[in-house]
Amino acid sequence: MNYSIKNYIQQGKEIVEQMLSSLYTDTYIPENLKASMEYSLLAGGKRLRPILLLASYHSFKKTDEAKTLRTAAALEMIHTYSLIHDDLPAMDDDDYRRGALTNHKKFDEATAILAGDALLTNSFELIARDELLTAEEKVFLITELSHASGPEGMVAGQVLDMEGEMSPLSLEELEKVHEHKTGKLISFAIIAGAYLGDATERQLAHLKKFAYYLGIIFQVQDDILDVIGDQEKLGKPVGSDEENEKSTYPNLLGLEGAKNHLSAYTEKALQALQEANIEQSYLEQLLYYFGERDH
Amino acid sequence: MNYSIKNYIQQGKEIVEQMLSSLYTDTYIPENLKASMEYSLLAGGKRLRPILLLASYHSFKKTDEAKTLRTAAALEMIHTYSLIHDDLPAMDDDDYRRGALTNHKKFDEATAILAGDALLTNSFELIARDELLTAEEKVFLITELSHASGPEGMVAGQVLDMEGEMSPLSLEELEKVHEHKTGKLISFAIIAGAYLGDATERQLAHLKKFAYYLGIIFQVQDDILDVIGDQEKLGKPVGSDEENEKSTYPNLLGLEGAKNHLSAYTEKALQALQEANIEQSYLEQLLYYFGERDH
Repeated sequence: MNYSIKNYIQQGKEIVEQMLSSLYTDTYIPENLKASMEYSLLAGGKRLRPILLLASYHSFKKTDEAKTLRTAAALEMIHTYSLIHDDLPAMDDDDYRRGALTNHKKFDEATAILAGDALLTNSFELIARDELLTAEEKVFLITELSHASGPEGMVAGQVLDMEGEMSPLSLEELEKVHEHKTGKLISFAIIAGAYLGDATERQLAHLKKFAYYLGIIFQVQDDILDVIGDQEKLGKPVGSDEENEKSTYPNLLGLEGAKNHLSAYTEKALQALQEANIEQSYLEQLLYYFGERDH
Repeated sequence: MNYSIKNYIQQGKEIVEQMLSSLYTDTYIPENLKASMEYSLLAGGKRLRPILLLASYHSFKKTDEAKTLRTAAALEMIHTYSLIHDDLPAMDDDDYRRGALTNHKKFDEATAILAGDALLTNSFELIARDELLTAEEKVFLITELSHASGPEGMVAGQVLDMEGEMSPLSLEELEKVHEHKTGKLISFAIIAGAYLGDATERQLAHLKKFAYYLGIIFQVQDDILDVIGDQEKLGKPVGSDEENEKSTYPNLLGLEGAKNHLSAYTEKALQALQEANIEQSYLEQLLYYFGERDH
């Protein structure tokens, strides 16, 4: 593994977390609601989506990332709200996430629902009030983000995932679930960063393809790690997918088949980057990093 | 009661409902999610907020309301999502709303949570894609709407209301709950309509005061109707507030005191309209209409 990309990820994480922890220092949010929002927002995690946004921006030779930080934070807020709602008893009914109590276990269900609603709503306000963006840029970003996270995006993925749990999925159906449930926000990260980095229409089109493959790669690797991963490095139990008879890439394709799928998609993603003329960028390094990660 | 204002309200309702029913005719939303979203969105109701938005716009001598309709629909989508989430078992745990099953009883809890999330998210996309608005107008409206419905607005009101159920509220505390829980969206309706109607900064400032009083008036009248209203006209049982020992204006001030409060606030609202130079407008008529309504 490349030392510098690990360093880059670490730095990105710190910049993003600094922004996130500054959001609610001076607001009129009821104490308990604010505590619940920050409990989940500042609970750590990979910060994958904002880091991808930064990397996409930096891939266009931009150095000052201040312009991207509120959008990156807004994206993480939406990801966080989706985790809070996914963990609810009516959904996945999880008591723990990353070793800590889930929001509704730490607070209560009503507060968790409202904290999720609040983070979602507030993410759009954060972009709308960003003084470093023009009105046109804000409208582009809000349009893309609301589409990616709405009923034709992430929420659709959640519904398809729930419906898929009732019957085994085909490879095509499984890919559709992931394309929506995690892929759409990953795609937003790439497109938003590139757009703010002044990418051309042609480059954006190729990066949409890149983002699609990257989203699937991320999921395939997740599924593989659930089979062969190290419980300690992952911070969660392995083997749960098979136990739950979940539709996964290893279950559908076998372990070798899933690994081949990963290689094939990495190749395609790389090609999309070349077509966008941004090979040898942070995005390329992140692509390799995610395809090889062990946690 | 004035015949023409009744007619005006009816016409506004029809225009808004036409827009709402056209929203999801041509989309890639999973069937069950779309059904759940439309079940609540098209379930009727007074359409108070969008009608106020239209009336505020028309009060500035504007006749073509096309420019306001997507924003009005977005506002109703946010109101609808808040009702879906409020009715959930973890919140108010209501099985019926306006005589029909609540969303989570008709579908299931998970679908209801997601339908609410989807309507909320999609409301911002609707404004962001509105071809009749400039980028600056979209940013203004999205900033105001997200603020009014977020953790310093409607969601705060919901939290304060929940907390208030545990102990009796003072008049000041009660007013703070209503200011946030219903007042902020009512205020958005007035401000958005006036802004699109080219109101001056000074007019907007006075209309904010008007909206504050109007929101309280609406709530006081609701509370009074729960004491003396006609169950059939209201379409819901009366007397439930007293049964639930809820903090209401009649409980705090007595019935006569609540009526006096209503008169005093109607006077103040009228004065704010005069200061905004839009007396003798639809807003004035709506103010009287809401202060005298019997359902």
